[in-house]
Amino acid sequence: MKRYGLVEAGGTKFVLGVASNKDDIEATTRIETTTPAETLGAMVDWFRSQGDLSGFGVASFGPLILDKTSPDWGHIGITPKPHWSGADLAGSLKIAFGLPLAIDTDVNGAALAEARWGVGQGANSVLYFTVGTGIGGGAVVDGRIVHGLSHPEMGHIRLPRHPDDREFAGTCPFHGDCLEGLASGPAIIARWGASLSDLPADHVGHDIIASYLAQTVVTMQAVFAPLSIIFGGGVMGTVGMIDRVRVQAKALGNGYFAGDIDEIVTLPGLGDKAGLLGALALAQAD
Amino acid sequence: MKRYGLVEAGGTKFVLGVASNKDDIEATTRIETTTPAETLGAMVDWFRSQGDLSGFGVASFGPLILDKTSPDWGHIGITPKPHWSGADLAGSLKIAFGLPLAIDTDVNGAALAEARWGVGQGANSVLYFTVGTGIGGGAVVDGRIVHGLSHPEMGHIRLPRHPDDREFAGTCPFHGDCLEGLASGPAIIARWGASLSDLPADHVGHDIIASYLAQTVVTMQAVFAPLSIIFGGGVMGTVGMIDRVRVQAKALGNGYFAGDIDEIVTLPGLGDKAGLLGALALAQAD
Repeated sequence: MKRYGLVEAGGTKFVLGVASNKDDIEATTRIETTTPAETLGAMVDWFRSQGDLSGFGVASFGPLILDKTSPDWGHIGITPKPHWSGADLAGSLKIAFGLPLAIDTDVNGAALAEARWGVGQGANSVLYFTVGTGIGGGAVVDGRIVHGLSHPEMGHIRLPRHPDDREFAGTCPFHGDCLEGLASGPAIIARWGASLSDLPADHVGHDIIASYLAQTVVTMQAVFAPLSIIFGGGVMGTVGMIDRVRVQAKALGNGYFAGDIDEIVTLPGLGDKAGLLGALALAQAD
Repeated sequence: MKRYGLVEAGGTKFVLGVASNKDDIEATTRIETTTPAETLGAMVDWFRSQGDLSGFGVASFGPLILDKTSPDWGHIGITPKPHWSGADLAGSLKIAFGLPLAIDTDVNGAALAEARWGVGQGANSVLYFTVGTGIGGGAVVDGRIVHGLSHPEMGHIRLPRHPDDREFAGTCPFHGDCLEGLASGPAIIARWGASLSDLPADHVGHDIIASYLAQTVVTMQAVFAPLSIIFGGGVMGTVGMIDRVRVQAKALGNGYFAGDIDEIVTLPGLGDKAGLLGALALAQAD
C-alpha cells in the first residue's frame, strides 16, 4: 500500500495530510498561507517528520502551469495574490524528497475524488464547482480530468444577465460580468453589502445568484450531458441555495436535457475532507 | 485493410460512401431524406451493391440515442423533423448486414476527423461547431469524444445578449434565446429577413452574430482550454465572419486564456469531405 503526502493548497491556508487510502488519513496539519518561502518551507518540514512516503498529491488554488513540457510545470501562474505568482509549489517537494508528484487544481482534484468516492460515484461525467471567493470548476469524463492547453477556468464562462441585475458591472478584473464576476462571494458583497446568509431569505439576491448558477447548470448540460454537477464553496452554504438552483435549472432546461436535475445537481458528498481526498485521488491517478 | 460503409445522415440528404482510409473514398452517392422507410431502404440497397464491407460508420443529425445499454441505441431521438422521431438508423444496417457499426452525431464525427486529419491534428482538445439550420457542437479530448448521459447539445448553451439585440425572443422552441435560438440561420432570417450573405457588409447583423459566436469561443476556452475551435456550417460561409469572431473573442477574453485566438479559431480543414471522414473516423475508432 502506497503512503502519500497530501497537500490542499488554498489562498488562506495549506492543509497537509498523509494517507494510504481514503478511509485512513493518518495525520493532518494546517499552515497559514503567507509567503511561498515561509509556507512551502513549513510544508516541507512537516512532511519530513511524517516517515517514509511513496509520493505526493497536490490539489491547489490556481492558476497552475500544468504543461509537462514546460520548465515551469507545477508552478503557480500569474495571480493577484501577493508573492505567489510563479511560486514553485511542485518543485519545493520534488527537490526536498525526489518522489513522484501529481498536481492539479483543487476543483479538478475534488471532481476526481467525488467521481471515485462521493456523489459522482459510478458516473462517467462529473463536474465540480466551487462558489466562494472565486468560482472554479473541474470536469472528469470517463474517469479522466479534462485538460487542454491548460486546466479549465470555468468561473469565466459567459452568461445572460438576470433582468433585475442589468446595472452591476461585475467584479472580474478580466471580464467584468463572467460567472465569477456575477456570482462569487465578492460580487455578492459588492452589490448588497453582505453575504447571502446575512440577507433576508426573501432578498432578491438569492434568486439572482441562483439564476446564474442555474444558467451554469444548463450550459454544462449542453456541453457535457453530465450525470453529476456538484456545487461546493461558501456561497453554497446559504440555506436553500441548492434548491433554488435546481428549480431555476429545471425551468430553464424546459425538459430538453437527459436526466433528473434533482439527482444531477447536488452539494458535495465528501464534506470537509474533499480537499485532501482530491489530493489523494490525484496521487493515485498519477 | 478494413473497408467501411460510411453514412453522413443529414436532414435534407444522406451522403453514402465506401472507404478503407481517408485518402481513398472509393464510391459515394446521395439520397434525399424523405421518410425513414424510403431513405433507409435506399441506403441499404446501395451498400448491398458495394461488395464486401468490414463495418459501418454513421455520422448523423441528432438527437441520437447513444446509451449502449438501451434497446433504442442507434435510434433517432425526439425530433421536430416529420417521421424521424424514433427511426432505427443503426438497426437498419445492423439487421441487413450484421456487421460492426459505430454511430455518433455529425459534429462529434467531424470533431474526431478534424482532430485526426484536419486543422485539429496533434491537438489534445478539439471542438467542432456547425452553425447553420441548427447549431451543434462536439468535443474530442485526448483523442476521445466527450459523452455523458447522452451526446452534447452545445447549441443550447446560454449567452449574454448583444446590447442591440435585446428585443428578439430567439427561435429555439425549448429555450428561446440559447445560442441556437440567437445565431442559427433561421434566427438570422427571423430578425433581418435574409441570410447574412444577402445583407450589406455593414449591416449590424454581422457583428451581432459574431458576438454570439465569440461568446461561445470564450465560454469554451473557460471550459476546455482547447487548442482548436472549428466553426463550419452555412452561416460561416458569410464573408468575413470567422475574422469578426476572432476579433470579438480576443477582446472578450482580454488576454486571460492560454493560446492565440487566430490559431485556435478556424474554419474546417476537411471541407466537403468532413461528413464522410467523420463517419470513417467513427468506424475506425470503434
